Amino acid sequence: MRGIAMAMKKFINKREDLVKELLEGYALAFPRKVRLAGSNLVVRARPKAAGKVGVVTLGGSGHEPALSGFVGEGMLDVSVPGEIFAAPGPPRVFEALKTADRGAGVLFIVLNHAGDVMAAKVVMEMVKKQGLNVKMVLTHEDIAGGPRDKPDSRRGLVGCVPVMKIAGAAAEAGRPLDECLAAAERASENMATLAVAMSPATHPSTGQALFALADDEMEIGLGQHGEPGTGSMKIKTADETADAMLGRLLADLRVNRGEQLLVLLNGAGATTLMELFVVYRRAARVLKEKGIVLARGAVDEFLTVQEMAGFQMCIVRMDDDLLKLWDAPCDTPYLVVR
Amino acid sequence: MRGIAMAMKKFINKREDLVKELLEGYALAFPRKVRLAGSNLVVRARPKAAGKVGVVTLGGSGHEPALSGFVGEGMLDVSVPGEIFAAPGPPRVFEALKTADRGAGVLFIVLNHAGDVMAAKVVMEMVKKQGLNVKMVLTHEDIAGGPRDKPDSRRGLVGCVPVMKIAGAAAEAGRPLDECLAAAERASENMATLAVAMSPATHPSTGQALFALADDEMEIGLGQHGEPGTGSMKIKTADETADAMLGRLLADLRVNRGEQLLVLLNGAGATTLMELFVVYRRAARVLKEKGIVLARGAVDEFLTVQEMAGFQMCIVRMDDDLLKLWDAPCDTPYLVVR
Repeated sequence: MRGIAMAMKKFINKREDLVKELLEGYALAFPRKVRLAGSNLVVRARPKAAGKVGVVTLGGSGHEPALSGFVGEGMLDVSVPGEIFAAPGPPRVFEALKTADRGAGVLFIVLNHAGDVMAAKVVMEMVKKQGLNVKMVLTHEDIAGGPRDKPDSRRGLVGCVPVMKIAGAAAEAGRPLDECLAAAERASENMATLAVAMSPATHPSTGQALFALADDEMEIGLGQHGEPGTGSMKIKTADETADAMLGRLLADLRVNRGEQLLVLLNGAGATTLMELFVVYRRAARVLKEKGIVLARGAVDEFLTVQEMAGFQMCIVRMDDDLLKLWDAPCDTPYLVVR
Repeated sequence: MRGIAMAMKKFINKREDLVKELLEGYALAFPRKVRLAGSNLVVRARPKAAGKVGVVTLGGSGHEPALSGFVGEGMLDVSVPGEIFAAPGPPRVFEALKTADRGAGVLFIVLNHAGDVMAAKVVMEMVKKQGLNVKMVLTHEDIAGGPRDKPDSRRGLVGCVPVMKIAGAAAEAGRPLDECLAAAERASENMATLAVAMSPATHPSTGQALFALADDEMEIGLGQHGEPGTGSMKIKTADETADAMLGRLLADLRVNRGEQLLVLLNGAGATTLMELFVVYRRAARVLKEKGIVLARGAVDEFLTVQEMAGFQMCIVRMDDDLLKLWDAPCDTPYLVVR
């Protein structure tokens, strides 16, 4: 086709208006739960009165429902969406932290991606200068990135969702900032995630595929934007894929017989729930054989990569307090617990 | 590639085990909400005591989360999943109706597809012979199928989800069978749906694409399994697509200024929430201009077609009672209302 641009198979208007329009539509779809405030911050429709720890996150758009889909009672107070796959600028993030601070301080959840971390560092300097009470927790659970003792090399993947759920429940319960931070860090340090992809996504701003895979190949260990994994391989069955991923996750987290796990399967976009259920079934069987307790599960699209085919498997070692926080009610557009 | 079978880009095991395995995984993922009973029926984990009208549906697998994803408090009592894109056999459906009958009768929700209707008719004969108290409601809101006065020509699309939510809420509130039926029929007769696709899905049992579309084309009016629509066209923008679909839906349902609508956007599989939000935003604007009240909205993947790119737009004319039933709490794996 030499130079002839293909039409992108996405329902969008002008690419430069995409984030503005998607946020407008999102707020219109959930007027009882969220609204836009300030410079396109996503906030709760009915913020809680003073005294609650605020929970804030930031991140690029194009991963819907993450991250703004989890703003609401029992989870996030404010989300700062960036442009497609790009971190928001520090001034908006600082505005978000100030908005969320109702006198009890703010827990600031950041996924380990270069742009997000760079923005967060600048913001934490501003926080320090202004004397705001903000504690930051960095999620970095992608075991494909590097060894456990080098957390900086590990990306933040879908594990941010349980961390947000747990931190949000702790804040909603009225726990002080240091206890919210402790719960979030306990979840963060006790999780491991691995991604697999079968086909790439198209970047909605450039129209380019994020990576390439042959028709009979898949790849384990990719990042949230198609960053390279541990090399492509022939397509495996669902059971073989589950075994390969779960085995590495359990070894990395050193999960012992009798311990309790949350297993979360996150569809990347084009991979169906049908497939995720088949994978989940295998994971449940393997855990049973090993005497590990499958205490909780979650199977859905939480943090997507456009129409990429693939999924993330995330395990979290749970204790009684984490289970209680995971089970606590929440009411956000894309996660509701009664 | 002349005759060389491509590897299917799906995480599955043996194709003949797919439905059995996906149901097993589904039940394992939501043990507090659903379980498998009898001949692979999906039932509530904690069925309600006697006296409540039962709500039952049937349908092919491969559309997850529909239909079994909506079994739970405030929605369905029993779902009868068939093989991939195929209706279940009458004996299992009859078993489901008997399981759901706790003395107050059963509302049986059927989507207008040839196989489902054929099974339902046989079952309704069995019901009659055995003297069971079952009322059937048929959903047929695909306006691409034919004119409104020929309902048999219209397929049942995602409109089944609001009908199930409304009927389920009526049953949960303790209304008698005739009132549950009346609410379901009022919703069913006051809705209209239209589908659009940009790229096809692969049938997970055959490995074949369901239909073909050129790289720069989309098609409006397709059915739930890629049945032909009203002809392909060049890809439109999100706003143009929303305008074209909403205009036809409003005209078909003869929606007047001041009336209240539920607008539901259902992602087919590969189309992102990002895109659906952009479309929803446009629909909200158009309704505002026309003086029609956007009373409620829903944007999610409810009834998918594997990894097809596209979505369904469904509108329902709401009255105060339907709004009350739509807003009522429910607790199913894939729809929770607090």
